[in-house]
Amino acid sequence: MVNQAEIDVRTADDDVERSFGVDEDLVRAAETALSDGKLGELDDLIAALHASELADLLEELTPDSRLLLLDHVREELDPEILPNLDDVVREDILEQLDPEEVAAVITELETDDAVDVFENVAEADQAQVLERLSPSDRALVEEALSYPEDSAGRLMQRELVTVPKDWSVGNTIDYMRERAANLPRDFYEIYAVDEERHPVGSIPLSRLMRNQRGVRIDDIMLTDVRAARVQMDQEEVALMFKQFALVSAPVVNDDGQLMGVITADDVVHVIHEEAEEDIMRLGGVREDDFYEAVLDTTRARFSWLLANLGTAIIASLVIGLFDAAIEQVVALAILMPIVASMGGNAGTQTLTVAVRALAMKELTATNAARIVGKEIIVGGINGMLFAVLMGGIAWLWFGQPVIGLIIAAAMVVNLLIAGFAGVTIPIVLQRLRIDPAVGSAVVLTTVTDVVGFVSFLGLAALILL
Amino acid sequence: MVNQAEIDVRTADDDVERSFGVDEDLVRAAETALSDGKLGELDDLIAALHASELADLLEELTPDSRLLLLDHVREELDPEILPNLDDVVREDILEQLDPEEVAAVITELETDDAVDVFENVAEADQAQVLERLSPSDRALVEEALSYPEDSAGRLMQRELVTVPKDWSVGNTIDYMRERAANLPRDFYEIYAVDEERHPVGSIPLSRLMRNQRGVRIDDIMLTDVRAARVQMDQEEVALMFKQFALVSAPVVNDDGQLMGVITADDVVHVIHEEAEEDIMRLGGVREDDFYEAVLDTTRARFSWLLANLGTAIIASLVIGLFDAAIEQVVALAILMPIVASMGGNAGTQTLTVAVRALAMKELTATNAARIVGKEIIVGGINGMLFAVLMGGIAWLWFGQPVIGLIIAAAMVVNLLIAGFAGVTIPIVLQRLRIDPAVGSAVVLTTVTDVVGFVSFLGLAALILL
Repeated sequence: MVNQAEIDVRTADDDVERSFGVDEDLVRAAETALSDGKLGELDDLIAALHASELADLLEELTPDSRLLLLDHVREELDPEILPNLDDVVREDILEQLDPEEVAAVITELETDDAVDVFENVAEADQAQVLERLSPSDRALVEEALSYPEDSAGRLMQRELVTVPKDWSVGNTIDYMRERAANLPRDFYEIYAVDEERHPVGSIPLSRLMRNQRGVRIDDIMLTDVRAARVQMDQEEVALMFKQFALVSAPVVNDDGQLMGVITADDVVHVIHEEAEEDIMRLGGVREDDFYEAVLDTTRARFSWLLANLGTAIIASLVIGLFDAAIEQVVALAILMPIVASMGGNAGTQTLTVAVRALAMKELTATNAARIVGKEIIVGGINGMLFAVLMGGIAWLWFGQPVIGLIIAAAMVVNLLIAGFAGVTIPIVLQRLRIDPAVGSAVVLTTVTDVVGFVSFLGLAALILL
Repeated sequence: MVNQAEIDVRTADDDVERSFGVDEDLVRAAETALSDGKLGELDDLIAALHASELADLLEELTPDSRLLLLDHVREELDPEILPNLDDVVREDILEQLDPEEVAAVITELETDDAVDVFENVAEADQAQVLERLSPSDRALVEEALSYPEDSAGRLMQRELVTVPKDWSVGNTIDYMRERAANLPRDFYEIYAVDEERHPVGSIPLSRLMRNQRGVRIDDIMLTDVRAARVQMDQEEVALMFKQFALVSAPVVNDDGQLMGVITADDVVHVIHEEAEEDIMRLGGVREDDFYEAVLDTTRARFSWLLANLGTAIIASLVIGLFDAAIEQVVALAILMPIVASMGGNAGTQTLTVAVRALAMKELTATNAARIVGKEIIVGGINGMLFAVLMGGIAWLWFGQPVIGLIIAAAMVVNLLIAGFAGVTIPIVLQRLRIDPAVGSAVVLTTVTDVVGFVSFLGLAALILL
């Protein structure tokens, strides 16, 4: 019987700046308690935290405090903290733990989380951790690792409930009550399987609930089962959940046998991660950037900037071709960045839409021609509008109508090309099996810079010299 | 009893380019069948499609074919198609339907989807649709509309199952069997409520399943209930689901009374939408861009480009201050875009990380100072690396060591400022209640352009003239 006082309905609200996770005061208080060695106070602070909140706290503490907190909770470490940590912090924490402790954590977790954590164990220590697992757990981890990274096989939990399709609702409920201790912690549907363990139907628990004990499973099961194969990429899995508004889905091997189940809470993480990946890659950074140490961040960003330096130098070489024109008419040097920059921005708009549409499979071979056409028209219209606008400004600024005309013409050319390049570059990169989110921006900037400078300076050289 | 032949386990696979949704051949075939008026063929093509797939097909068809297909399926329109459509296409379709037909669709849907669809009805027609709903449906729609857009109140479905906490597992199951016809279509947990309808516990169905009939609900219910308030923003709801790995969550009003429930499949859409919003805004486009008509797209993109033109003109005005230096040393005009572009790219890297970290509430007042510090250090280190690299290149290129020195110094300055501005601009915009994803890029480019040109040309003017 539950004491009324223990009932704790927490509601989250918009009014507070941070509704869940750990608030800033808590982080500060924990930081102080740790550095002053007041561990009693610390215990009061963290007593009510969910594993995912303790994980947030570990992430937000300074590295030194993080280790102090870890030492403090280490004896009774909640295994659920580990899967909730960001990769960088997780590796940090795993390095501090003995193989014994890591094995204990992995044993407690469900397969998908266990494998997720195991992947962050330093390679040199992985064998030692595996040795300390039970033979069956070791086999599950090794099998999961045999599937490609970011595949359904890695994402699924092996714990699930299956019944023969000729059972009744009553049999099924009795069976679950008997096996209560061995059931997965949370599940939302059970599967009817044939003798070869092929899933032949799914029965959402809410469907099981509304039927009388005598009803047969194969009379109520849904036979339109949407299953993922073990090798399927997690991004595809997420799209499948989104397409069919799923809350859980079975995973089958190449022989169509039921291997595990993926639940919506895992998919929420995947969607989040994949969107994060696209955002970060478009911005030229890695996904873990925020929690990475200064030197790792610097190194990762350096390579992207180096690619951009290459782009910028190419653009400068193009400018160098027209040094005579610039020496005679300094207005050209003043105006030329405008053409390049407008092309770059217009191209980025198109690129952003195209990269996302490719990721969401909305941009396909069927509609590619139509979309390219649309982008050229949009680029053309905006090009003409900005040609008039900027042509007028340049004329007024330098008092020479011809300079206005030149920048107007260059603007139309560059915005047309920007629209065309913004959609074709990601399509071509995808065909070449290069992630469009990573490579597109560099290629696009090169195109819009070169076209911008060549059209503006080239036209000027032709007309003015 | 299910015929074995009807059992249809569909697995999606990586090998095929498009595993679900509609494939390109289907779109083409449907397009042909529609334009040739071969409606029998069309029926064969669409017979096996899920409502969400039919929605995809409607999205991918040309506007003319879309209307033809709508006319064809209109008589037996599956209401679930509407909530699965993109906003732009949905509005298109709703415009074609009579208020009668729209009311029929809304009546069939669960509250969250019903309201979602109703919001896309043209304002002039909304009253007519409302009139045609049953009084209770009308009240539900009107109540949902009274909650802020993108709030938990809009996202929740009102259909849910509650029981008094002193019931037994047996009572509860019997109650659900009796009310089978009135239960929500899918649900994953039920709630124990007190006399005032406050939720006092949640009981996942899998938990109900594993307990004997005699067990009391208040002995097995989870008392740590994570509820959302009706006004809570959907982005907060999504963060709550992610934080606690939820599959469903109750929604309460200001008095803490249970009003509805949000399920993970809705949250999957929200996460997707919110990430999409951030990606699109960072790229200077609107979320609906892909499906918008040419003129709408052009107009929406124009305003962003106009802001960027302002930025570019400011940068050019700065260049104009140094026209004397450029006239004397044309190398300056050739090299100056490199400094500006490297600053822009380095700043964008920082900006991308900062905007996402703000959205994910990872960047907070507590760690802001530390993150700004980190960005300045990263900017400084990369600034020095690129100073050496580009300084050397410029020296070799123009044979003047002093030009190498000038560009090296400007590079350090601009990358330092880019790191600092990249993280402080979004923080400041957020404080000013401006969406950092929208405004940051324009402000940042202005800063990195101006600083880039001033530091490079200014230093050159000082040293060379």
